[in-house]
Amino acid sequence: MARETIFQGRVVDLGLETVTLPNGKEVTLEVIRHPGAAAVVPLHDDGTVTLIHQYRHAGGGMHYEIPAGLLEPGETPQHSAARELAEEVQLQGEHYRHLITLHTTPGFTSEQIHIYAATGLSAAEGQPDDDEVITVVRLPGAEALRMVRDGEITDAKTVCGLLMALGYSAAGGT
Amino acid sequence: MARETIFQGRVVDLGLETVTLPNGKEVTLEVIRHPGAAAVVPLHDDGTVTLIHQYRHAGGGMHYEIPAGLLEPGETPQHSAARELAEEVQLQGEHYRHLITLHTTPGFTSEQIHIYAATGLSAAEGQPDDDEVITVVRLPGAEALRMVRDGEITDAKTVCGLLMALGYSAAGGT
Repeated sequence: MARETIFQGRVVDLGLETVTLPNGKEVTLEVIRHPGAAAVVPLHDDGTVTLIHQYRHAGGGMHYEIPAGLLEPGETPQHSAARELAEEVQLQGEHYRHLITLHTTPGFTSEQIHIYAATGLSAAEGQPDDDEVITVVRLPGAEALRMVRDGEITDAKTVCGLLMALGYSAAGGT
Repeated sequence: MARETIFQGRVVDLGLETVTLPNGKEVTLEVIRHPGAAAVVPLHDDGTVTLIHQYRHAGGGMHYEIPAGLLEPGETPQHSAARELAEEVQLQGEHYRHLITLHTTPGFTSEQIHIYAATGLSAAEGQPDDDEVITVVRLPGAEALRMVRDGEITDAKTVCGLLMALGYSAAGGT
């Protein structure tokens, strides 16, 4: 594989990669190399979940999301998830369960996000980065699922995390 | 908002955007502007679903995915979904139901993907683009959900589409 780097920034590492496909055809693809990320669904004993309501410029406005962030060098994904849980919503979990690892958009980025459920939650010290504009919200799991169904939660990692953690029954079936 | 364009390619339109956050802080962000995409879960009357097994260089190998593609100029999302259904798996649907519209990764891209369920399926004419290496697979819905649970399906739009279309009960609860 040949790679021509176009731009290396804080999050985005864009290159043109020339590869031979399994069918023998040679193509040049725009590829964003990404360090990976971790996210966590904070599940309280009373059936509520904690989300953040966060301004996302690229995403066009405010989004409800589970706590998440980039993997830092040397961190395991679960450690990253625990760090974000403390920084973004000031919680720590006693137990972590891996729910799923997603490719967010495999057509143009290598980004993978490792999603956990955290239980046995208690208060922790932490604060968001100063470029994060975050409000913490805690709501019943059933209400979070309603917000997914009604299009109020649209962030892919959050939708997948909530559906995997809380279960989901298709309304009306097919 | 000020934008400095870094690169405009076939899929990726990367710029540095300087914006004022709701908290008054000014930041420069790396943003991929994206035309949007559509995807469709093909649900057969016998409870099976049709997926594609596709080589994704950026995503590191082969992925099971629902049919999907970029919105073309002038197309509605549902029209794009129907076009991809014909091109990628040679099917047409009698009924379309909007399941969810996702932001794939709102931290750095504007990409939104509109996901539908198609029912009343029958054969259609169509063929993939010549840079797409695709195998069509048809399998029971329960098997597709097992593959999500077991980490064999990791593409975010596909995970969300299958969970929303087929329903999902969290194994073991929390």
